[in-house]
Amino acid sequence: MGNEGKGVLFGVDYYPEQWDRSLWESDARRMREMGIKAARLMEFAWVLLEPREGKYDFSLFDEAIDVLAAQGIGIVLGTPTATFPYWLYEKDPAMVQVNPNRMSRDFGARREGCYNAAIYRKAAGRIVKKIAKHYGKDSRVIGWQIDNEIGHEGSDRCVCDNCARQWGGWLRKKYATIDALNRAWGTVFWGTTYSKFDQVPVPRDQVATIQNPSLYLDYYRFCSDSATAFTGEQVRILRKHIAKDQWITTNLYPAPHAPVIDMEEMLRPMDIPAYDNYPVWGDQDEPLPYFFISYALSYIRGLKDTGTFAILEQFSGFQGHVCLGYLPPEKQAVLWTDQAIARGADKIFYFRWRTAAFAQEQLCYGILDSDNSDTSRYASLRDNIREKGATYARFADTPFESQACLVYDKDNSRLIRDQYLSKGLYLSPEPYMQVGYDLECARQFAPTVLFNVNTDVKSAQGVDLSRYKLILLPLYQMASPVFVKKLEEWVRQGGHLVLGFRAGARDEKNHAVSTELPGLFAEMAGITIKRFESLNETKVKIRVGMIPAHGEVWADQIIPGTARPIARYTDRKKHYRGMPCATVNEFGKGKVYYFGTTPGPLATILLYRKVFKAAGLRPKFYGMGIEAVRRTTTDGKKLEVILNHTARTRWAGLSRLRPYSMISREIRQAR
Amino acid sequence: MGNEGKGVLFGVDYYPEQWDRSLWESDARRMREMGIKAARLMEFAWVLLEPREGKYDFSLFDEAIDVLAAQGIGIVLGTPTATFPYWLYEKDPAMVQVNPNRMSRDFGARREGCYNAAIYRKAAGRIVKKIAKHYGKDSRVIGWQIDNEIGHEGSDRCVCDNCARQWGGWLRKKYATIDALNRAWGTVFWGTTYSKFDQVPVPRDQVATIQNPSLYLDYYRFCSDSATAFTGEQVRILRKHIAKDQWITTNLYPAPHAPVIDMEEMLRPMDIPAYDNYPVWGDQDEPLPYFFISYALSYIRGLKDTGTFAILEQFSGFQGHVCLGYLPPEKQAVLWTDQAIARGADKIFYFRWRTAAFAQEQLCYGILDSDNSDTSRYASLRDNIREKGATYARFADTPFESQACLVYDKDNSRLIRDQYLSKGLYLSPEPYMQVGYDLECARQFAPTVLFNVNTDVKSAQGVDLSRYKLILLPLYQMASPVFVKKLEEWVRQGGHLVLGFRAGARDEKNHAVSTELPGLFAEMAGITIKRFESLNETKVKIRVGMIPAHGEVWADQIIPGTARPIARYTDRKKHYRGMPCATVNEFGKGKVYYFGTTPGPLATILLYRKVFKAAGLRPKFYGMGIEAVRRTTTDGKKLEVILNHTARTRWAGLSRLRPYSMISREIRQAR
Amino acid sequence: MGNEGKGVLFGVDYYPEQWDRSLWESDARRMREMGIKAARLMEFAWVLLEPREGKYDFSLFDEAIDVLAAQGIGIVLGTPTATFPYWLYEKDPAMVQVNPNRMSRDFGARREGCYNAAIYRKAAGRIVKKIAKHYGKDSRVIGWQIDNEIGHEGSDRCVCDNCARQWGGWLRKKYATIDALNRAWGTVFWGTTYSKFDQVPVPRDQVATIQNPSLYLDYYRFCSDSATAFTGEQVRILRKHIAKDQWITTNLYPAPHAPVIDMEEMLRPMDIPAYDNYPVWGDQDEPLPYFFISYALSYIRGLKDTGTFAILEQFSGFQGHVCLGYLPPEKQAVLWTDQAIARGADKIFYFRWRTAAFAQEQLCYGILDSDNSDTSRYASLRDNIREKGATYARFADTPFESQACLVYDKDNSRLIRDQYLSKGLYLSPEPYMQVGYDLECARQFAPTVLFNVNTDVKSAQGVDLSRYKLILLPLYQMASPVFVKKLEEWVRQGGHLVLGFRAGARDEKNHAVSTELPGLFAEMAGITIKRFESLNETKVKIRVGMIPAHGEVWADQIIPGTARPIARYTDRKKHYRGMPCATVNEFGKGKVYYFGTTPGPLATILLYRKVFKAAGLRPKFYGMGIEAVRRTTTDGKKLEVILNHTARTRWAGLSRLRPYSMISREIRQAR
Repeated sequence: MGNEGKGVLFGVDYYPEQWDRSLWESDARRMREMGIKAARLMEFAWVLLEPREGKYDFSLFDEAIDVLAAQGIGIVLGTPTATFPYWLYEKDPAMVQVNPNRMSRDFGARREGCYNAAIYRKAAGRIVKKIAKHYGKDSRVIGWQIDNEIGHEGSDRCVCDNCARQWGGWLRKKYATIDALNRAWGTVFWGTTYSKFDQVPVPRDQVATIQNPSLYLDYYRFCSDSATAFTGEQVRILRKHIAKDQWITTNLYPAPHAPVIDMEEMLRPMDIPAYDNYPVWGDQDEPLPYFFISYALSYIRGLKDTGTFAILEQFSGFQGHVCLGYLPPEKQAVLWTDQAIARGADKIFYFRWRTAAFAQEQLCYGILDSDNSDTSRYASLRDNIREKGATYARFADTPFESQACLVYDKDNSRLIRDQYLSKGLYLSPEPYMQVGYDLECARQFAPTVLFNVNTDVKSAQGVDLSRYKLILLPLYQMASPVFVKKLEEWVRQGGHLVLGFRAGARDEKNHAVSTELPGLFAEMAGITIKRFESLNETKVKIRVGMIPAHGEVWADQIIPGTARPIARYTDRKKHYRGMPCATVNEFGKGKVYYFGTTPGPLATILLYRKVFKAAGLRPKFYGMGIEAVRRTTTDGKKLEVILNHTARTRWAGLSRLRPYSMISREIRQAR
Repeated sequence: MGNEGKGVLFGVDYYPEQWDRSLWESDARRMREMGIKAARLMEFAWVLLEPREGKYDFSLFDEAIDVLAAQGIGIVLGTPTATFPYWLYEKDPAMVQVNPNRMSRDFGARREGCYNAAIYRKAAGRIVKKIAKHYGKDSRVIGWQIDNEIGHEGSDRCVCDNCARQWGGWLRKKYATIDALNRAWGTVFWGTTYSKFDQVPVPRDQVATIQNPSLYLDYYRFCSDSATAFTGEQVRILRKHIAKDQWITTNLYPAPHAPVIDMEEMLRPMDIPAYDNYPVWGDQDEPLPYFFISYALSYIRGLKDTGTFAILEQFSGFQGHVCLGYLPPEKQAVLWTDQAIARGADKIFYFRWRTAAFAQEQLCYGILDSDNSDTSRYASLRDNIREKGATYARFADTPFESQACLVYDKDNSRLIRDQYLSKGLYLSPEPYMQVGYDLECARQFAPTVLFNVNTDVKSAQGVDLSRYKLILLPLYQMASPVFVKKLEEWVRQGGHLVLGFRAGARDEKNHAVSTELPGLFAEMAGITIKRFESLNETKVKIRVGMIPAHGEVWADQIIPGTARPIARYTDRKKHYRGMPCATVNEFGKGKVYYFGTTPGPLATILLYRKVFKAAGLRPKFYGMGIEAVRRTTTDGKKLEVILNHTARTRWAGLSRLRPYSMISREIRQAR
Repeated sequence: MGNEGKGVLFGVDYYPEQWDRSLWESDARRMREMGIKAARLMEFAWVLLEPREGKYDFSLFDEAIDVLAAQGIGIVLGTPTATFPYWLYEKDPAMVQVNPNRMSRDFGARREGCYNAAIYRKAAGRIVKKIAKHYGKDSRVIGWQIDNEIGHEGSDRCVCDNCARQWGGWLRKKYATIDALNRAWGTVFWGTTYSKFDQVPVPRDQVATIQNPSLYLDYYRFCSDSATAFTGEQVRILRKHIAKDQWITTNLYPAPHAPVIDMEEMLRPMDIPAYDNYPVWGDQDEPLPYFFISYALSYIRGLKDTGTFAILEQFSGFQGHVCLGYLPPEKQAVLWTDQAIARGADKIFYFRWRTAAFAQEQLCYGILDSDNSDTSRYASLRDNIREKGATYARFADTPFESQACLVYDKDNSRLIRDQYLSKGLYLSPEPYMQVGYDLECARQFAPTVLFNVNTDVKSAQGVDLSRYKLILLPLYQMASPVFVKKLEEWVRQGGHLVLGFRAGARDEKNHAVSTELPGLFAEMAGITIKRFESLNETKVKIRVGMIPAHGEVWADQIIPGTARPIARYTDRKKHYRGMPCATVNEFGKGKVYYFGTTPGPLATILLYRKVFKAAGLRPKFYGMGIEAVRRTTTDGKKLEVILNHTARTRWAGLSRLRPYSMISREIRQAR
C-alpha cells in the first residue's frame, strides 16, 4: 500500500487531547502549510474513549478529525492498548507484566499489560472493536497502527502468573509428550527432568548460573507467540470492520533484535511495516552510526515484500525521558529523513507536532516547542518537503531493489541474548536489552553502506535466494537443514555466500552438531574448525593479503580443506598465529566465504571489496561518511541517491555534497 | 541561641552505655581537661530507656549525667527514635520503611521506621514525652537533638503500605478534586488519568521508563511532610516539658539536597540548625573539595536566620562502616574545625569520644581509640582549643555576614533527582542518593570561596533579597512568579543576579512554560533561547573575552536581545559555535547574567571575577587552596580569617600560612 | 589413601546418561587407550536413580559400570544431591535457597536445595543410603564424592525461612543466654538489643548500612555448620555401607575462601581433599596467575594431613556457561596437570570425557568434542600420560614437604567478606563472591612460588607449627590468644613469623582490642601502631633498603619499639613519609616481621628474599614465570620439579625448559 504514486506521504504525530481545543484549528492549518498530509492519533487514549467500563466517548477525536480533515489531513489511528484505564487495572492488578528480574510493573507508566492476562486481552478486543466500528468506514481514516511499540521497554518478556499458566500448554502443544521435551532440551543434564508440562518454570533471573538455554529459547518463542496473538486478534477485529483501503501496521523501534518477538510473524496479517526512527535518543553523546541506522531501516523494509515501509515516528526535535544528549544541527535531522526515504520509506510521520508541556515526555521535543512559537525546525522541515518533494516522488513509491541480502534468523538472535559467547556480542544499553546480535549484523551490514551496494535484510525463513547474488549470513549458529540445502543449491548455481563464525555449530534443537564444525556448512565452506577462542573485547592481529589489520569478537582456527585462505592470524601472542581466519571456497558455480573472526574496520574494507567484486556488485567507495543507494524512478530510470553524513563539503565523483545533504543523479547503467 | 558570648562551645558525642561505668569518671575528667564543655548522649538508647513497653529506666543516663556534670559538662540529649526496641517492631513488622527499589528494611540496622507507621509515631511520642518530663527541667541539660540524621541513608523516601495509605489523603488535601490533579500532572499523557485519589500509586522503581515527573515531585513533598510531621510532633512534646533555655535542633548531614526533605521547613519550629561534618568518610581517597564543605556549611547556616549553627558531629578520627580511605594529617582535621567556625559554627561536638569496640561502627574512629590510651588526636584537639579559643571567641558568636547569596529551591532540587537532564547533573555516591543538584550548586559556590566573597546559601522561599548585592540562582527551572517578581524589583533597584541554564523553563505546576525560554526571566535577562544541548560528561570549548576556556554539563544557544555576550562557544565540533554562552543585561540599576553552560574552572574564574567586581564585592584571590572569610568581632572590628587547605606553606599578602593552618587578621575597611 | 604407590591415577568425568548406550563401549576403550583408569559418575543423577519417590532404578549405572570395568576402569560415585527431582521440589517449593539479595532459586539450575530444609535433608539421606547399599561393596567402586561443589555459586549463604527457623536455636546453643549474645555482639550499639533468640534476623542485604558485623560472622558460621551437617550425614550413611578401601571426599573449587564454609571442618570425616581445577573459566581473557593456582592447590592439599590430594575436575577443554574467553594452547593445559601433580595431586580426573551437546554446559569443552571425533586434546593428554607417567610415579605418592606455611583463618576470611577495610581487599568476580581474603593470601603466597620455597597452606586451627621454619600470617585481625601463645613459643624457639597489617586488631569476639595495635602481637613484633590509612586502589611509594618500590592496600604507620625498620614510606604526598612500613624484631631465637602495607611486586621480591634467607629456606629465583618445587621420590631421592609457565624457551641453571613444559632433576642436597 504505497501512496498511489504521489511520492512520500508526510505526516505528524498529533495529540489533540493534550491541548486546548482553541489550538486545533491553527495546528491543522500550520500542518497543511508545511506540507503535512496525515496525522497519527489516539494510541494512548483508551481512558478518553472508554472513561468507564462499557461507556464510550468518541467526541474528542470526532471533533479533532473534523478539524484536521478540513485541512486535507488524513488520519492514522493507533489502537490504544499500550496503556489502559485504571478501572481495568483495578479489576485485576495481576494483569501487569513481571520482568524476569522479578519486578512487576506499576500503573502509571506504559506497556504494563501482560499479553496473556485474560482480562486485558478481552477488554483490548472490545475497545478495538468499538473504535473499528466507529472509524472503520470513515474515508478520512487512511490507516491503523496496532498498539504502540509492542514489546518495547522490556515488554517482550514477561514471567507473570498469567504467562506461567499458559506456558505449560504451549509446551504441550509443541512437544506432545514430556519425554520429547526432555530429550529436546537435554534435561538429563543436571538431572532437571520434568514429568509434567506444568512443572516447567518460567525463566526468571537466577542467583547464579543460567537455566537450560533451550528453556530460554522456547520461552522467547512463547513470548513472541503471546504478543503476536495479542496483535493478531486486533488485526482480525479491525479487518472485520474497516474499509479495504485502510492499511494496518504496527510501529517497531530500534534495535531490530532487542525484542525476542518475531516481527515478521507479527506483521504477517498486516499490510505494511513501520518504524520509529530515532537516530539519537536520551543521553547519547552522538547519533547511532549511519550504517546502523541503514541496517535497521533495511530490516524494517525486509519485514514485508512491499519494498517500501512507513516511519510512524521520525525524529524532529531531540528526545529523552530523564536526560538529553546530542542535539543534531537541523540539516542533519533533515538528512535522516532523506536517509529513510533513500532506504525505502514512503511515509514519514514526524514525532511530534508540539512538545508536551507535562508528564514523562516533557523532554521529547516536537516540531514546535510547547510555547507554540514558530521554530526553525518547522521551517527547515517545511522547506525540505517543498524543495525535495519532487525528487522524493521520483523513486519513493518504487520498491527498493537489492542484489545482496543480509540474512538473520530470529531464533539465532534469541540464542545470543543470554548465551552470548563473547563479550564482543554483548551490548546492553538498557537493563532489559541485549542487542549483541544486532551489533554483529550491523558490523557485517556496514560494508554494504560503505561500498554502496544496495542490500536487503531478510529472515532465513523469508528470504528468496533467487533474487540475490550475495548473501551475508552472520551468527547462524543453529542451522536449519532445509535452509542450508537451499543455500547449497543456490551457491552451486552461482550464488556467493559469506558465513560468519559459529555457522552450523548447532542443530535445530540447539544441540551441538555431531559432526565437525562448521557442521552442515563443512562441505560448502571447504573447511574444518577444531579450535576457537573468544576474543571478548580484545583484538587479534591478522593480515589480509599483505596488509596488517585486526579481527575482533571471536577467533576460529580454520583448517582449509578445499577452501583457500584470504586472511591469516599474525598475532605473536596467539599460539594459532599463521592459521587462516578467513577463507573462500569455490563451490559449484558459486563461492562460499567463511569469516572466522569479525573483521575490524580496515579488514572489513579489504575483505568485502573482494567479496563484492567477485559477486559482480561493483562496489563504489566515496569515502567514509558518504552513503549511496541506487533507486529506480517511477518512469524506470536509474538514480544514484547520495548522502553526506558529515559536517564538511564532500565530493562524489563530480557532484558536490554540502554538509549533511542529499543529492540524486541519474546513472546510465543499471547493474 | 548562641553560647552567651563565650565563644565556641566544644562538645563531644558520648555513649556511656557502650562502656563500663568504671571508665565514666576518667572520661569526664579527660573531657574537661581538653576543654570539652558539653556532651551529646542518648540518641540510640530507646531500648535502654524503655526495655519493655511502658517500663522506663533512666538510671544509666541519670548516673552518667551526674558524672559528666560533676566535671562541668553540659548535656545535649538526642531523642532516641532513629532506632527502636524489638518489642515495638514485633507488634507490627510492617512499621519499617520500604525503599523505592522495593527492598524493605530489617531490624538491626538503623533508620528503619516509617514516619507514617502509626504504631511507631505513637510510641515515639510516648518515649519523647517521658524523656522530656524526666530531663526537661534539668538545668544540666542545655539542648535537644531530635532523632538522628533524619532522612539519611535513603530514609527520606519510603513507599511502604503505611505511606500508600496516607498518600491519597495528602493528594486530596492538596488538589481537592481528582480532575485538578489530572490537569496539574497532565495525566492525559499516556492515558494514565485517575478517577480517585487512592488510585495514585506510590512511585516505585520501574522496569523501564519513569513515572510521571509530577508524581515524583508531589511524592517527595509528601515524604518531606511525613518526616516533618514526625519531627514536629517531637518538638511540640519537648516544648511542653522543657525549659526555655534548652535549645532544640536536629543534626543534618551531607549532601544538602541528598534527602528530598525540606529542611528549612523541618527546622522551622526548632531553634538552631545543626550539621554532622564529615569532610571524608568511608572509602574516599581524598576529602571533599574545601569549597564543597563550605557550601554545605553555608547551607546549614542559612536554614535559620541566626547567622550561626552547631556541628553535632565533627570529624575527629577517620570513619567508615565497611571500608576506610584517606587519613587526614591531624593538622588538617583541626583545620576542618577552623573552617566550620569560620563559616559560622559556634558549637563543635566531636564525633566521638572513643571508638566503639564492636558493632557497625568499629571503624568509626573517635578522639580516643578503643584501647583508651592517649592519642595524638586528643592532644592536637586539646591544644587547638587552648591555643585558638580566644581567637574563636572574637567572632564565633557574631552572625556571619554576607552580601552575596546562592539561592536554592527545594522543589527544583527534587526535580533534578530523577529527571536530571544531563549526566553532568547526576552524582550517586550511594544507590539511594542523587546529588546532582548539590554538585551544580557547589560549582557555582566555588568562586565565592576562591575569591573570598562571603556568601550565604538560602532558599528561594527564605531569602531576604534586600540583604544582598548579588544573587546566584543555579538550576531554577521551575520558577515561582512571585519570586521572579521580587527578583525583578530587586534588580531594578541595583541587584546583580546570575541565572543558570534552564532558568524559568517550567511553571509552578512543572509544566514547560508557554513562552520562550528563559520564560519569566526573558525580559530581565534580555535573551531568548531556542535550542540547547546536553553535554553530559563532555566539554565544549568557549572563549571568555579572548581567553580559551570550556563549558560543561549543558549548552544553551543564547540569542541576545538587550543583553551583551560575555562568552561564546568556539568549539569547531559544534554547529552552534559563535553563539553566546553567557550574557549580561543591564536592567534598571542592576544587572542580570545568564550562564547557558556550567563554566569550567578557568571560565569560572574569568566570569565570576567580573561578576563580583561589578557587584562591588571586591574579589580577592590568594591562590588555589586558600579560603578566606570576613567576620565581625564581638567588639565590632573586622577580621579576615584565612585558611590554608594545602600541605605547603603559603602567603596571603604579608601573612605566612603554615600547612593546614588558619590565621586571622584585622582589616581596616569593612566592605 | 594414595594410589598404592602406582603414581598418579588418571580419571575422567563421565556422564553415560547423556549419551546413547551404543557409544559406551568405544568410550571405555578409548579411555583405556589414553591411560584413563577411573571415571567419576552420577553426581547429577538423582532423578534417574529415583524417578518417582521411593522407586529406584540403578540399571543405567549398573550397565555403564559393567562397560567401564570391562576396560579396567575404576569408579568414583558422586552422591547426586546437588540437584534433585521435581517430585521432591513440588512437595515443598520452600525447600530452595534464598540468597541474601532476597532472590529465591528456581528449579532447573543447580545447588538450589537449602541444607536446612527438612524434606531435602531427609530425601538426600534416603537416596544416599540406597546408593551406598547398592554400590558400597562393589569392588569396582574405588571412591565417593559427596554432593558436587558444595557451597559453590552462592549456595554457601542462604537466608530462607528454613534457615531462619534454625538460626535462633543455633544461637541459643552457642550463647545460652540472650544477654551473652547482646554483650558479645555489642547490640547496645544503635540500640538493637534482643530479648529472645528468635528475634535475631537472618542477614539480608539492606537498603543502606550493614547489619552488625558479629551477626554476619555468626551467621556464616551457622551456614558453615548447616552445610557441614548436610555432608556429614552423607558421610555417616556411606561409612555404614561402603567398603573400607573406598575413599570419601567432596570436590572443592576456586577460590578457597569464596564460600563461608569451613572446608577443613567439612572434610574432617572424609578421607582425602579434592579440587576442581579450572585455571581459566568463562570470559577470562587470561588464566589465573600461576601463583594463584599454586596457592589454591596448596590450600586444598593442606585441608588434610595426607600431603596429597585429588583433582576431580581438571581443565581439559575450555569452559563457560554463557561466554568463553582465553583458549590455552594444549601444552599449557598439560602443564596445568604437571603443576597440580607437582603441588601434590595424585589423582587427576579430567573434566569431562566429551562435551555435552545440550543444556547449560554446551560451552564446557571436554577431552572429546560432542562430534566424538579424535581431538588433539585427546592425543596430547594421552601422550602426556604415556611420556610422563614414570616421572610422576617417582614422587606423586609421597607427601609434599614444606618448611614454610601460609596460615589462614576461616573466621578472618569471613570478616573481610563484608567489612573489607580497603577496596584493595575487595574482589567480586561474581555478585555472590567476595574473595578479597584470597587475593591477599595469594599476594603473600606469590613470593614462595617465585623463590621456589615449598610452602603449605594451613588453617590456624590445623597448623602444626613445629613442622615449619617460617609462618606467613596475613590478615589475622581477629586473634586467638591460644594460637598467639603458640606462635610466641614457637618464635622463641627459633621460628620466623611474617605478620600482615591489622594483625591482632580484634579479640575473639571480634571486638577491637583494648590494648594498642598490634594487640597480642605487640611484644613479639616489637612495634606499636597508632595510625593507619586505607590505600584502597591507590599505591604508596616506599623504599626497601635504598631501592624505591611501592606498597598497596593498606598503610600502617609503624612505631618501632624493639623492632628494626626494613622498609619506609617515602611518598611526598603522605604526611607519614619517613615512617617504617615494614619491620623485623628479634624475639627469642626467632624473628617476627610486620608488614604494614601489602608490598608491590618489587617490594615483595626485596622483602621476601631477606625473609627466606634469614629463615634458612635458600630462596632460588629462576625468573618470572618459572615455578619450581622440591619433591621426595618414593626411593627417597630429592627432586627439583621445574615448570615453565611462559610461551618462550627458558633456562633453569643448565636445564632448558621448552615453552609450557616441566622438567624434573635430582638435587644433591635436601634442605
